[in-house]
Order: sequence, then C-alpha cells, then structure tokens
Amino acid sequence: MWIPDRQSKKPLYQQIADHLEQRISYGEYPPGSLLPSERKLADQLGVNRSTVILAFAELRSMGIIESRTGSGTRVSKTKWGATPKHTPNWSRYAEGGSFLPNPPFMRRIREALHQHPSLIDFASGELSADLAPNDEITKLMSEHKYTSYLGYDNPQGYVPLRQALVSYLERHRGIHTTESSILITSGSQQSLYLITQCLLSPGDAVAIEDPSYCYSLPMFQSAGLRLFRLPVDSSGIRPEDIRALYKKHRIKMVFMNPNFQNPTGMVFDAERRKQLLDLASELRLPIVEDDPFSLTAYDGVPPSPLKSMDMIGSILYIGSFSKIAASGMRIGWMVAPNSIVERLADARQQMDFGLSVIPQQVAAQFLNSNHFVPHLERLRMQLQFKRDLLIEALQKELPDLVTFSIPQGGLHLWCKLIPEVHDGKLLEEAIRRGVVFVPGSVYGSDSGYIRFTYARAKAEEIGPGIAKFAEALRELIGEKPAL
Amino acid sequence: MWIPDRQSKKPLYQQIADHLEQRISYGEYPPGSLLPSERKLADQLGVNRSTVILAFAELRSMGIIESRTGSGTRVSKTKWGATPKHTPNWSRYAEGGSFLPNPPFMRRIREALHQHPSLIDFASGELSADLAPNDEITKLMSEHKYTSYLGYDNPQGYVPLRQALVSYLERHRGIHTTESSILITSGSQQSLYLITQCLLSPGDAVAIEDPSYCYSLPMFQSAGLRLFRLPVDSSGIRPEDIRALYKKHRIKMVFMNPNFQNPTGMVFDAERRKQLLDLASELRLPIVEDDPFSLTAYDGVPPSPLKSMDMIGSILYIGSFSKIAASGMRIGWMVAPNSIVERLADARQQMDFGLSVIPQQVAAQFLNSNHFVPHLERLRMQLQFKRDLLIEALQKELPDLVTFSIPQGGLHLWCKLIPEVHDGKLLEEAIRRGVVFVPGSVYGSDSGYIRFTYARAKAEEIGPGIAKFAEALRELIGEKPAL
Repeated sequence: MWIPDRQSKKPLYQQIADHLEQRISYGEYPPGSLLPSERKLADQLGVNRSTVILAFAELRSMGIIESRTGSGTRVSKTKWGATPKHTPNWSRYAEGGSFLPNPPFMRRIREALHQHPSLIDFASGELSADLAPNDEITKLMSEHKYTSYLGYDNPQGYVPLRQALVSYLERHRGIHTTESSILITSGSQQSLYLITQCLLSPGDAVAIEDPSYCYSLPMFQSAGLRLFRLPVDSSGIRPEDIRALYKKHRIKMVFMNPNFQNPTGMVFDAERRKQLLDLASELRLPIVEDDPFSLTAYDGVPPSPLKSMDMIGSILYIGSFSKIAASGMRIGWMVAPNSIVERLADARQQMDFGLSVIPQQVAAQFLNSNHFVPHLERLRMQLQFKRDLLIEALQKELPDLVTFSIPQGGLHLWCKLIPEVHDGKLLEEAIRRGVVFVPGSVYGSDSGYIRFTYARAKAEEIGPGIAKFAEALRELIGEKPAL
Repeated sequence: MWIPDRQSKKPLYQQIADHLEQRISYGEYPPGSLLPSERKLADQLGVNRSTVILAFAELRSMGIIESRTGSGTRVSKTKWGATPKHTPNWSRYAEGGSFLPNPPFMRRIREALHQHPSLIDFASGELSADLAPNDEITKLMSEHKYTSYLGYDNPQGYVPLRQALVSYLERHRGIHTTESSILITSGSQQSLYLITQCLLSPGDAVAIEDPSYCYSLPMFQSAGLRLFRLPVDSSGIRPEDIRALYKKHRIKMVFMNPNFQNPTGMVFDAERRKQLLDLASELRLPIVEDDPFSLTAYDGVPPSPLKSMDMIGSILYIGSFSKIAASGMRIGWMVAPNSIVERLADARQQMDFGLSVIPQQVAAQFLNSNHFVPHLERLRMQLQFKRDLLIEALQKELPDLVTFSIPQGGLHLWCKLIPEVHDGKLLEEAIRRGVVFVPGSVYGSDSGYIRFTYARAKAEEIGPGIAKFAEALRELIGEKPAL
C-alpha cells in the first residue's frame, strides 16, 4: 500500500493529490464513482484528516473530483474532454447477481483488522503464524524437486494427495475410503459452497445447528435455502428435533460440526450419534459432517467422526488443513459417494478449473512426511496453553460478568455475558480499545454471547486483550474499570 | 488408480470382485447406486469385458449387486441386514442446483482422454509439459525460502503478486494500473465465473463472439443469461452489431477475446477497436476483455489489449498464466474499477476463501525473475514450430479437404472441412483411431468446423495425429485413405 513520503520536500497533501490523480487516471476510480471518505483515506494513509481535505480541495480545483454535501466525493464526469465520456454504471453492476455480501459485523471486523493491524485479534478463526508448520513446509519445498506436470489437474484433485488422504483418513479419522471417493477442495468453504450450490435448489429446506458458523456464511442465503434451527445443548443437537423439522418442512439436508463445534466447542454425544444415523437412514436424509477441529483434541484422543460409523453412505464428510496446519494452503477435502464427487468435480471445473497443483503436492508431502504427527502434537499443546491463558484472563478480569464451558479442543471459547449489552456498541468500544471479537449473533444466537478465538492472537496478547475487552464491557455497563 | 495384479495367483475376476466389494463397503457406491458399465470397468482396469462379467457374477451371487436388463448394475439395497437400510437418493441430489453439466462433446473428450492416455490430444487448450516453465519453477521453489504467513490471504490476492502484476501489465501489456485495482483469480475461468455470477442477473442479455469458447462454458447458461451472437469475420466482430443488439435486447455486457481469438485465431482490427470503445462509452456498456494469448505472438510483437486504450474504465480486463506459463498454477487476474474488485473479492471469499498463497508467491517470483522473458521467447518459438508442423501435416494429408487461416499467435488452428460430415461421427471415428479434437459446434459454429490445438500434443505426435484424423475423415466420406 502506498503511503506518503514524510522525508520528501513535496507537501503531504500534494503527494496525496498526485497519487489519487494517478489512481483515477488508471481507472481504479472511473468517472462518476465514489472515492473513499476523507476519514477512511486519512486512516489508510496515516495522515490527519485535514491533510486529506487539502488534497481533495486541490483535485476539486483541477476539476478532477466533485463533492456534494451528504453524497460524498466523486470523480468528475465532465473533465474528460468537451463531449463527456460515459463509464458503465458500475455501482449498479456491483449490485447484480444473487450473492449477498458478508454480514455487517463480519465486514466491520475485517475492515477494522485491515485498518489497524495492531488490533488484538480474538475474531479470526485461524491459527497464528507460529502455530502453522511454516518451517516444515519450507523444508519440504526446498528438499523435494517440483516435478509434477503443471497442466490442468485431474478434476477431483491431484492423485498423490488423494492417495495420501486415504491413509490419513484411515489412520487419523477411522474412515475407510478410496481415492476415487475424494474431492480436493479449496478448504471446507468450497466444499460447503459446492454442496449448497450444486446439490440443493433455491427454496429447499435444510437444518443447521443453533448456534452455528453456518449463520456467518451468507452462501446459505445466497443459494436461496430455507434454514431451520437445531438447538445445541451441552451434548450437541437432539435427533428428535430433526424428525420434527423433517415432518414439518421436508428438510433436504442437515449440516453438522459434531466435534468441538464452532462456536460452542461442544462434542456431539455418543448415544445421540447412533440415533442420528438411524434417523438419517430412516428418512433417507443426507448429513453434511464438517470435521475441521477433531485433531486438535487436547487430550490427544480425537473424537471419531460420524462418517466412521456410517455404513450406508448417508454422510458427506468434509475436512481441511485450515485449522490443523495452515488456512493459507487452501487445502480441503470431501468424502462422498461416487456420483456426488463426479457431479461436484464437474461443477467446480466450471467455477475455477480446479486447484493449483503446487500446494496439493506440498500438502501430500507434508501428510506423508514424518513432520506431520509431531506438528499435531505441538499444535495441541500450544492451543491448550492459549486456551488456559484466555480462561485465566477472563477469570481475572471478569469473574462476575461471564460464564462459559471449557472447550477440550478447537480454537474457540463460547462465552455468555451476564450483563445485558448491545452487541454492536460493545464491538465498537472494544475496537476503540484495540481488541476485536465476534458477537454471538453472527452465529444466530441471541445477543449476549461472544466467540473468542484464542488460536490467532499471540500468547502474550491474550491477557492484555482481555483486559481491554473488560474495560470496554465495564464502560458500557457503567462500571469503573477493575483497576 | 487400482489395477489387478497379473502376477498374483488369485484369478483376475476374483481380484476385481474383491476390489469392488471394498469400494462398495467404503461408501463409494452406496446401496441402490449405479455401478460403471462392464465395458467402462474393463477399459479402466485394462481387462477383457468377460473378466468383469465374471466379477459381477461373483458379487451378484453374494447378494452385493443386482443387475436388471436395460438399467445396468446397481448395489443391492437389501444386503445390509434384516431391516433394509436406506441411503439418501443421491442421484436426485446430483441433479439439484442450477449448474449445468459440461457440453456432451466436452465430457466425451475428457472421458476418452481419461480412459486412453495415449490419445493424441488436439483438444485440450493448454501447453504440453515441455512448454511449461517447470525447471524455472523448480529452481525458484528451491532457491527461495518460503517465508510468507500461511494464514488466510488478502481477499484480493497476495500483495507481492499484485505488485509484480502492476509492473508486468505496464511493461508487457501497456496497461497502467494499481495493485488495488487487481483481483487475483484461479485463472480466467474464475474471473468469468465471478463476472457472470455476481455482476449479472438471470435473464440479463449479453453479447459474445460467434464462434467463441464462451459457448463451451456452461457457466453462461447456468447463470441464466441470454446469449446473443457477434459474428467474427477476418477482422473480428463488427461494432455496429453491438449497437443493433443493444437496441433490440438491451445487452448488459460484451465478452471479447480480441487477440488471437479462441477458436478462430483472429486479431481484432485496429479501426474497429476505436469504434468499439466509442460505442462502449456512448452506450455505457461494459466490455469484458479476455487476453490470455497475446504474449504468444509469434513475431514477438504482442497486439495491444483494448484495456490499454480504455480511458474511462469501460473494460474489465482478464489475464492469466494458463496459456503463457502453466495452467496448473491456476493464476489469473482481473483489472477492474475499485467497486467491482471489492464486490468480487467479497463474493469469492464466500466460494473458496481465496487462493493458496504458495502458487501466488511462486508466480510473483517467476514474474520478477530473469527467467520470465527468456521463457516467453522460447514458448513463442516452440508454438510457432508446432503450428508449422500442424499446417504441414494438414497440407500433406488433406490438401483438398480443409481450409484455414494461419494464426499468428495462440494455441489453436480453426479449420473448415470442405466435405459435409457428422460432427459426432467424426469425433468417434477419430477417437477410435487414437486422436481427439474439438468439433466447432462446441464453440457455437455450424457443423463442419474443427478446432485443432497444436500446443498440447508433443511435436512428434502432430504428423501422425493428423494422419489418423485424415483416415477417420476419409473413412466417413467413403474415400480410401491417401496411402
């Protein structure tokens, strides 16, 4: 990102005006389009708002931009010669299609993290850099010659990676499968996207856990699905609720995250699992099992997936590297009956023509290497350590104001606030103090819940982050800070 | 892929029966699902059909599968215990959603290439392994430490790659842009998918070239767009046709491939380019410019993109590495106004959460390295050499039966057959003789046209491949082979 040069003799406002003029002339902001606000630009460029005001005034005097009270600053339409040239009405195109934007809280969090990289991040559901196997991957990349054919990949994904996953699934997840039943995807996200777009039709009813990360994914609404809730208690969902939803709404599919559920951290009860599988068979109802967290089990004994008990093929099983290795690899997988894998592979070709071979080769090497199991052990210990730091900080800072169950795996702690506070106000107050989290309403819960991710922040940030959060909360409920 | 062990003492049919039983028990073929046909399995496993018939008989006697005349062989539903267990009706789910499958010819070609890897491939629109910069990429991967953060990437793509593309676009394509105007995509395919899904709505009218590779992409129909044709003559499309379509159908967007058009190889005329840009401004009509082939220009002087003349931001510019480096990297880019890039980046997060950082880092290193320009020079020379081999072979084998213009860049030769033949019969006859091409009707043209890709086959395959094709053609029109 460009920022003005404070050593230069050219005044800051003039540098900014020149820079914006260039971006406008290059087409980033076509005639008639809206520029970022003065405040946003000042934030991005690290200058005072008054400097941006001066830069805008300069561009206005040159006829390049126009400001109108209340409607912001736009690129001029008449500057470009005697006959005004017309650009397409891009803002109308940007509203086209059936894709809903991300939920407002998620966009606000992303924007805040982008503008203030120093925020302590309890929001992003991913591992911190030191938890990812960067060294191992660097080593593998430099040791192994890259020899694969760099043409279009097999539509189901790179064969050696699917072979490595057959062993991985057998050894670590108790799932017996074959390479032709595996589809490699760009993380669980793409598996879910393919399922919602290609196996379901607009108007179809589906059941999802409540609360669930599925509510944070606008893809379900974008696909026109009707969502029905399966409340999660301390043993997970209740199978009889599925029967009731099936009778009432003819639900077509159930989406579940049975092990260390996101956001609650719950593990689905063993007895209920059997009931669920019987019910799925009776109703011929497909279950989508998302299983990203199991291998983080802090006791080293990952709970089994539903898929390992699935004798008849009711379950579409989804896994990924994102939460156990590195989200930036973008490697996920789905295990499904042949007809489904072929259908989704064909559709995915139409979307992006498959994944890059390079990270797939690296992922296969990593799975087959003797780095993988030690990495998992280290990851489990460090996640548990961070979880304990978070719990300690919450007990110190907010002993009277929060309750939670202690998760035995995963990256998240689901927290109930005892006082009533406004979700949005609490988030803004927290951002102002340098910390960010996800309000529970994003996951479909009532207000008053919060998801703290302890995997993403550095260990030394966790205590100070919760101290800032406590200040924000006490400010809102009118209490003096504890200190 | 598993194949039976011919050294084993266990009979082949028994090995196959055991293998299928395992795949069935693992859920690849759930109860009630259809197995591949005897012929297809025999092909895949490299055995006689009679061996598969024996294996099926074995499984049938065990109650694992059931065959009914005319409806194929299915996995038994009643084998699984006294109470029959029910699997979801997967075949109905596989028909859900709005994604159309690939066109029948394309599926037939893919299937034939999968089953017979020795086919001479004039169909796949990509480079052969020896044209890809494998050595350079291997070298870069082993020389550079992989140090990037492996978390979720910036939604618009890896910043150093976008920075490298700003220089690349300036130097090689005459396009001035900024990193914030660039979206990194999984090849041109994902750029087109994002545009058709997110900027247009079902029922919208768009104009595409005729013939055009767009007809081979079911994504346009899947998005519910109405397609109108712009005939391509030896100078490309005629701008006045766009005006007529706009008046009649209110077209919302135009899709073009102005340089070495796929499939015709035409370069859009300079005078018409100016008219097109004026018209786009007058009608406020966005033009999508797909520009994958320009840098293959055999004279070393790539034709300029429309985007380099676009002063007002009418053009969404798409580029990729697929045709100039390696399709398996899955690296493409779009240059667009800020509002469009942000919208598409947000939607893409919902589909796949962005690309892997690893190939993006490799691509940036490759662009910035001193390997890139020599690679392009070598590529151009070798493509021209292969084109000449193809032309020579056509002139030798079919001097009286085909006509074509000689392409000055790109990977394809567009060929008109003088005798009338049935597209599908010619394709089957060619496959039977060991060669595959794409019938022109896939690109929306009348029958009697063929696209030969000369980039994918090995140089030494081109002559023999055309000889086989000539045999197939002469067989169909009832002529004796020339030899």
